[in-house]
Amino acid sequence: MKKFPPLFKGFPQFAHGGDYNPDQWWHDTPDIVDQDMAFARAAKCNTFSVGIFSWGEWEPEEGKFDFSRLDALMDRMAAEGNHVLLATPSAAFPNWMVNKYPQIAKMTSNGVRTPLAGRHCHCWRSPIYREKVTIINTKLAQRYGRHPALAGWHISNEYNTACYCPLCTEAFRNWLKSRYGTLEELNRAWWMRFWSHTYTRWEQVQPGLNCSDGLALDWFRFTTEQICDFMRHEIVPLKQYSDRPVTTNMMGYYPGVDYWRIAEVCDFIADDRYPGWTDLKDFPGTAARAAFCHDMHRAMKKRPWLLMESTPSNLNWQPYYRLKRPGLHRAEELLAVAHGADGVMYFQFRKGRGGSEKMHGAVVDHARSTGTRVFRDVAEVGETLEKIRPVLGTSTVPEVAVVFDWDAMTALNVSGGPSQSRKLVMETILAHYRALWELNIPADVIESRSDFSGYKLVIAPMLYALHPGVAGRIREFVENGGVWVSTYLTAYVNETNLCFLDGFPGGGLREVFGLWNEELDGLTPEDRQFITPAEDNMLGWTGRGEVADFAERIHPEGAEVLGVYGSDFYAGEPALTVNAFGRGFAYYQAARCDGKFLHDFYERLAAKHGVKTLLKTPPGIHVMLREGDGEKYLFFFNFQPKVQSFPLDGITGTEMVTGERVEKAMTLPAFGSAVVRLD
Amino acid sequence: MKKFPPLFKGFPQFAHGGDYNPDQWWHDTPDIVDQDMAFARAAKCNTFSVGIFSWGEWEPEEGKFDFSRLDALMDRMAAEGNHVLLATPSAAFPNWMVNKYPQIAKMTSNGVRTPLAGRHCHCWRSPIYREKVTIINTKLAQRYGRHPALAGWHISNEYNTACYCPLCTEAFRNWLKSRYGTLEELNRAWWMRFWSHTYTRWEQVQPGLNCSDGLALDWFRFTTEQICDFMRHEIVPLKQYSDRPVTTNMMGYYPGVDYWRIAEVCDFIADDRYPGWTDLKDFPGTAARAAFCHDMHRAMKKRPWLLMESTPSNLNWQPYYRLKRPGLHRAEELLAVAHGADGVMYFQFRKGRGGSEKMHGAVVDHARSTGTRVFRDVAEVGETLEKIRPVLGTSTVPEVAVVFDWDAMTALNVSGGPSQSRKLVMETILAHYRALWELNIPADVIESRSDFSGYKLVIAPMLYALHPGVAGRIREFVENGGVWVSTYLTAYVNETNLCFLDGFPGGGLREVFGLWNEELDGLTPEDRQFITPAEDNMLGWTGRGEVADFAERIHPEGAEVLGVYGSDFYAGEPALTVNAFGRGFAYYQAARCDGKFLHDFYERLAAKHGVKTLLKTPPGIHVMLREGDGEKYLFFFNFQPKVQSFPLDGITGTEMVTGERVEKAMTLPAFGSAVVRLD
Amino acid sequence: MKKFPPLFKGFPQFAHGGDYNPDQWWHDTPDIVDQDMAFARAAKCNTFSVGIFSWGEWEPEEGKFDFSRLDALMDRMAAEGNHVLLATPSAAFPNWMVNKYPQIAKMTSNGVRTPLAGRHCHCWRSPIYREKVTIINTKLAQRYGRHPALAGWHISNEYNTACYCPLCTEAFRNWLKSRYGTLEELNRAWWMRFWSHTYTRWEQVQPGLNCSDGLALDWFRFTTEQICDFMRHEIVPLKQYSDRPVTTNMMGYYPGVDYWRIAEVCDFIADDRYPGWTDLKDFPGTAARAAFCHDMHRAMKKRPWLLMESTPSNLNWQPYYRLKRPGLHRAEELLAVAHGADGVMYFQFRKGRGGSEKMHGAVVDHARSTGTRVFRDVAEVGETLEKIRPVLGTSTVPEVAVVFDWDAMTALNVSGGPSQSRKLVMETILAHYRALWELNIPADVIESRSDFSGYKLVIAPMLYALHPGVAGRIREFVENGGVWVSTYLTAYVNETNLCFLDGFPGGGLREVFGLWNEELDGLTPEDRQFITPAEDNMLGWTGRGEVADFAERIHPEGAEVLGVYGSDFYAGEPALTVNAFGRGFAYYQAARCDGKFLHDFYERLAAKHGVKTLLKTPPGIHVMLREGDGEKYLFFFNFQPKVQSFPLDGITGTEMVTGERVEKAMTLPAFGSAVVRLD
Repeated sequence: MKKFPPLFKGFPQFAHGGDYNPDQWWHDTPDIVDQDMAFARAAKCNTFSVGIFSWGEWEPEEGKFDFSRLDALMDRMAAEGNHVLLATPSAAFPNWMVNKYPQIAKMTSNGVRTPLAGRHCHCWRSPIYREKVTIINTKLAQRYGRHPALAGWHISNEYNTACYCPLCTEAFRNWLKSRYGTLEELNRAWWMRFWSHTYTRWEQVQPGLNCSDGLALDWFRFTTEQICDFMRHEIVPLKQYSDRPVTTNMMGYYPGVDYWRIAEVCDFIADDRYPGWTDLKDFPGTAARAAFCHDMHRAMKKRPWLLMESTPSNLNWQPYYRLKRPGLHRAEELLAVAHGADGVMYFQFRKGRGGSEKMHGAVVDHARSTGTRVFRDVAEVGETLEKIRPVLGTSTVPEVAVVFDWDAMTALNVSGGPSQSRKLVMETILAHYRALWELNIPADVIESRSDFSGYKLVIAPMLYALHPGVAGRIREFVENGGVWVSTYLTAYVNETNLCFLDGFPGGGLREVFGLWNEELDGLTPEDRQFITPAEDNMLGWTGRGEVADFAERIHPEGAEVLGVYGSDFYAGEPALTVNAFGRGFAYYQAARCDGKFLHDFYERLAAKHGVKTLLKTPPGIHVMLREGDGEKYLFFFNFQPKVQSFPLDGITGTEMVTGERVEKAMTLPAFGSAVVRLD
Repeated sequence: MKKFPPLFKGFPQFAHGGDYNPDQWWHDTPDIVDQDMAFARAAKCNTFSVGIFSWGEWEPEEGKFDFSRLDALMDRMAAEGNHVLLATPSAAFPNWMVNKYPQIAKMTSNGVRTPLAGRHCHCWRSPIYREKVTIINTKLAQRYGRHPALAGWHISNEYNTACYCPLCTEAFRNWLKSRYGTLEELNRAWWMRFWSHTYTRWEQVQPGLNCSDGLALDWFRFTTEQICDFMRHEIVPLKQYSDRPVTTNMMGYYPGVDYWRIAEVCDFIADDRYPGWTDLKDFPGTAARAAFCHDMHRAMKKRPWLLMESTPSNLNWQPYYRLKRPGLHRAEELLAVAHGADGVMYFQFRKGRGGSEKMHGAVVDHARSTGTRVFRDVAEVGETLEKIRPVLGTSTVPEVAVVFDWDAMTALNVSGGPSQSRKLVMETILAHYRALWELNIPADVIESRSDFSGYKLVIAPMLYALHPGVAGRIREFVENGGVWVSTYLTAYVNETNLCFLDGFPGGGLREVFGLWNEELDGLTPEDRQFITPAEDNMLGWTGRGEVADFAERIHPEGAEVLGVYGSDFYAGEPALTVNAFGRGFAYYQAARCDGKFLHDFYERLAAKHGVKTLLKTPPGIHVMLREGDGEKYLFFFNFQPKVQSFPLDGITGTEMVTGERVEKAMTLPAFGSAVVRLD
Repeated sequence: MKKFPPLFKGFPQFAHGGDYNPDQWWHDTPDIVDQDMAFARAAKCNTFSVGIFSWGEWEPEEGKFDFSRLDALMDRMAAEGNHVLLATPSAAFPNWMVNKYPQIAKMTSNGVRTPLAGRHCHCWRSPIYREKVTIINTKLAQRYGRHPALAGWHISNEYNTACYCPLCTEAFRNWLKSRYGTLEELNRAWWMRFWSHTYTRWEQVQPGLNCSDGLALDWFRFTTEQICDFMRHEIVPLKQYSDRPVTTNMMGYYPGVDYWRIAEVCDFIADDRYPGWTDLKDFPGTAARAAFCHDMHRAMKKRPWLLMESTPSNLNWQPYYRLKRPGLHRAEELLAVAHGADGVMYFQFRKGRGGSEKMHGAVVDHARSTGTRVFRDVAEVGETLEKIRPVLGTSTVPEVAVVFDWDAMTALNVSGGPSQSRKLVMETILAHYRALWELNIPADVIESRSDFSGYKLVIAPMLYALHPGVAGRIREFVENGGVWVSTYLTAYVNETNLCFLDGFPGGGLREVFGLWNEELDGLTPEDRQFITPAEDNMLGWTGRGEVADFAERIHPEGAEVLGVYGSDFYAGEPALTVNAFGRGFAYYQAARCDGKFLHDFYERLAAKHGVKTLLKTPPGIHVMLREGDGEKYLFFFNFQPKVQSFPLDGITGTEMVTGERVEKAMTLPAFGSAVVRLD
């Protein structure tokens, strides 16, 4: 594969920097930018997100604009050779605006406007707010759209939450009209004869009717669409007056927005990631969750992406304010790079003196010293990024994909059951992903609408709901030789959350998997169940899987049984199957098994179907590959709090930071990391 | 005793069937009723609750009615030999109605109307809603009131919750006027000089003043009265045009409504019961709680009743979605029959495709197969009910009653203390009941207003509040030779929640029990306390009772001490007493002891006072009797997840399903059940 | 030192009595006062709080007053030789008042008025309410201001909570104007450029913006000021027509009000204290928390104070309704006396029949008997107080002070981090205080604005925020030979919650402590950390401190290291230091250590710096001193549930209740207490 061009045109470096808010300081500390540029040079920071909540600074009174300080800042940045991601300031309106136009404030589902919630308080459809956004964005675009320091546009900030105001409700109805045409069809799609909910006029449609799981699913979709529409509105003047790319910062697998739709509006992908590292019993688990997001962000556009926010130190909004242990900061940032980031940035560059984030980690602490451990950690990342610059633009093309589908997760989460206490979609998908991460099998994280055709193996845990066409594409994928893995709670409902009527897995998948799922058992924490291998099973699986939460009673209709239940009244019944279908194989896990089972299962599966692992490593060691233009870079991580050594199985190369020769074996200290250019 | 006539005139079978909502289907699946009647025949289902939330179907627009499909359904049911419980649809108003008349929606205590809560959203006093109900109920009654398929009327559904709108508040004031006459009397009854709450005008009376425990208790009573009044309003046209009985489905010991008042409005009793079976350590406990409700429902009208709803499978609204283990479904349904049900029905017959209950267990699953385990379980119950048809109309006349008084429980629960964290009324009553259930001593569950005279033994745990006359009737009962058992927290307050002033137990009971209760100790979970037998105690009680939560320091004033405290500063003081009073005995348990103590205590008590047990059985085995017209039927249950055998102590007869001869001993598999016609 | 005059002029006894509400009874029980005076004599009660919520009784209709019964009560009290603390009734408005003037009701932060919350429901600034208060208070003052029974005025009751109505919001803005002058200055002080919160008009300032920690801190201060202002308003007519002292009852370390400000408005200090005694594993801990409050109340005016409320028995509003074990009531009340109370009173004298406090402990129970254990306990306290009357007017002048600063605590609690789950200010201060309490080192509890100069040792745990001047006064205190102890999380922010910029501890304290605090580690419950002694440390400290929650990484800049961390990546780094500064010493505890460490540390510190302990005693034994006019009284307590003996180390004297000679050793039963007049 070819290397990709840099994220920012003409800027062939890893981005390194952070959110930068000198506007909180410059009124009282006129030399703040001078101070900070010195810090930036010392920490090898080169990229800054500017102006994220600064509307009140650019437009202190309605229609009165003041860009003098921003002009100076942009010029200074250019002079320093730094780049700026200039924000549109829509994530927080100035006080004067909501004071004059209260109708711009978001409305909660119980009809109250929330002008005092801090940020993200605006209605998505307010014509006044949209007009104000157009004006300020136009001003910014006209003034800085081709400024030499401008790397790109940072649209708003962490878009989220819904508005229930009359305008948004009306927009929802119109969206439904275009989707369903008639009320008759809407009543059918949402099963509205239940409890006499049948609509007879469009005005009766109100978001917030929690007992309709069809409505709840569509409301989620509509909220995503509202955000996309607002973002498209924001971008218009930027595209008119500027040639730089736009993005917005996502929040990983945040459940409130379908980020695949947001991705379509972005020129490149940016994410905010805060692993936290407070689970002392399982640092690798924390790392794997972060990598899951990274692999999704790389897969969204199948090219490098940007880590827009991370913390250089502890997190004020988490339950515990734990410091990053030595090595962990570097490992966290390099993990993003290993999984496709072409830049890593921080919230924030300089710690504020007041406000609700004054205790959040930052590059420059209140004590304003380069002598802090945190500052040195950041500077070390800066140096490392310079040394591994050849990695820039390379990427990874995995043989495996894990399906994480926002709609399917939402469909289950808003449904009344099964098991009110445990839906576990996200936890399950992460557990499957983690097995691959442990096995050093690179994976993309995709959605059910993604193209499956390039993969050898696709894993789709708990794909509860099926969009139209998905069942057919799965069938086609397997027929053509693909290996597919599904689990319990797959294909129960269609795209409007109506149950399939011909036996689960529905929509035609019963034939693909060669089985019928008769019923689902929801286990209490006291229930004991496990699965054991069927004799002479095709996969050669041995061992045992501890079952919790969910166990389906399934009946093979052609599938081969690989494992059976070990206890309770369905002991001996199938629990793990594979169906040879066309030229491929469709696996089915009927029960929720533990991580050790998943590790063993995918190890067997990879061996059986020729899926490559980068290297077999001890627990906590993770390896990832980037490649391009014929070069290959292998990243090594030790996410255990102890030194570890392991053989390299013939891999040879050169560590890019130390320049040392790598062969035979590698030793990594606690939380150590290394980048090796392969021979 | 004589057998009772069938619940439904001319229908001498056990009712078996369920909620049936073809109106959710027939628009898109015209042959749905054909399909379902075939399933019904296969499962031996013969009774269906129809139209529970179907208002929008019968009256799709205001004043426009369409009964064509219901006509066909009723005729088809008649043709099949099935019976219908036709619902009045008031439990959910159609969207068009609340859209046009927003004032029909219920108001919460903070003044907000709730049109979007799904169901049970209407005001109890809205003249418009009442008029609409009269119209639709009249239409239904006129059209189907004497239809051959009509078994009876199912009024609304699971009536519950209060409305705080101005109309209901005004009705509350009027109810208070008729109860108390003057504000002076109301201030006295509710102790309103506390915190200057004194009313000087009736308009000042507002429900929702949580610090008034007199108001809170009366508001509970008024809410019950509102529901009764609404239900009486619903029934008027039914009685005018139909000769079939009416009922509504209760929810066991649901704390929000005093079901004894509802019972007075019903022609027969119907209940919804969902044991859940998720407590793996104590299946018998789950069964006993269900039987407690059954015994109350039998006692309410002292005749057979109907289990209106139960689940054939798992429950979507519980924390865990656990399948019923083999045998458990049959045992659960037969337990209701054993305790007096002349029919067992399900929610629901066919599982819906959408809405918040689509994952609730049903007879016909989404896969529409007779081949499911659940369907076979249901069919087995159908067959069993046919085989035990002679049991129909028999009943049980216990020697023992347990008092569960909604008012007394509410009085304590709304009071400020003692022990905010633990009120435990329901738990305590269930614990006492359970001892009887384990001992196979049949019991009625009655309220304090019930007639005590027919019983040998009455147990009234935590009868915190006394209605006028109750103390006198207890005195009379004991004087006349009855055995009475009370506990800690008995007779602290009068009917308006005012404390008695002459020493607890108050209202005159101090003399009956021959003791004074000086003070109550509320134990923390760490406190250790126990009771031990007094030497040569009259009851011959040995052993030990572990004390938790509550322990009173009592002073005998004539009572004999049976047990004393074992530790702490009141070690050696009385904890268990009996007072010979008139020709009877009044027992007092001053402390909350464990289940083992209760089991031993009631075993001794039964032996001492000649209360009959049906059979002494091992733990988890339960036996219950129905009799009539000289026939006796003994039901046996094994609620342990293992096979159990036990001697029959001379009992002989014939198992009605297998036809096998029963004598000497019985063996039951895990969750097994049997019905024996005694010789 | 000289003895102080009695709290109530011409009343040289310990006050003993309680809240007394005959107005809840006298309409139905005309002889209630006769009954109660007999009880009072039997229990040696002599002081009563009257009329606390009785507005509806004195003014049953607007403008119509009826004091006839109160006249009789006051005269009767005088005749009995009793004294009355007459309440202003503002803590609860009568129903007719809020009915006619709904605008007097308090408004919550979401804009709803709360007329139905029971009590404390009024707005602080309502002109109508203030006028009504003036009228009733004037009437009471004119009528009873010089009544022989009148001891003093009890203003309102347990003032608390904020009002968010437009009037109060406007008052807040005016308060800010006078504090900050300009919006520019306010924006700076609160860091309002964060998230575009910048104010451009005063009308934009709204309490309730939770993400502004500057606003939240000032809103707390303003709420305190509102209460003080309202209280001053209440007092005007009392001072005009009466010569008796005024007070209001505080609630210990209740976080919602800065009681040091309230204290300034009171003529003497009164507190409500309810230890509860439900922590069975740590009775001494419960006692120490109570004593902490007592020492604050003595320190507030450096003279004796009044325990206005305590319970004679169990508490209805706590999770558990635990009885006081024998001895505990006397010990609890004498503990207050030992720590400076010149009177102990109860809530309440007679238990009400209804309302939310009818199950609260009282002197006279519902059974109206002098034969209860509780009544005897109370009478015993009455007798004891008579026997120890010489103690009256004596006090304690400690060498040590513990700083508990409401502003500093609030500043941290409203800040976004560190460690959302754990702020622990109060717990930490109590832990330090407790070490002194265990060591029998008398201490004042002061605030950071108090004068430090009289103390040898001042301990200021977690003094997160600094008022202007505090750093300078600490410096001066140490320079002049004082010993100061600070901990982690000291001096992070200034008085408007803005972080210091020159390294923590900020504001100039870095030099005083001779160290720089680089960063703070927030430990999860799983983290293991401890501290060990530095070799040859100045303090001679040996042993070990277990660390939880917080650990700072500090760098000595002159300070001597006394202890170092024992594990993790900062093992060996300083954790405990002392800086010789001027003629004094500034200690710094960088980590949150366990109680055993604190005990050892302060024992060493006292020895090193010559701070006197009254006596070395076994765990659970507590000793406290009162002295005056050359007399010394030593109080002894055993807060363990077992008998304990200990040597007296040369102390000799006479136990004042038994008259027994005390020397060599003392033996106390479980929860025993003794008062010894020293030779």
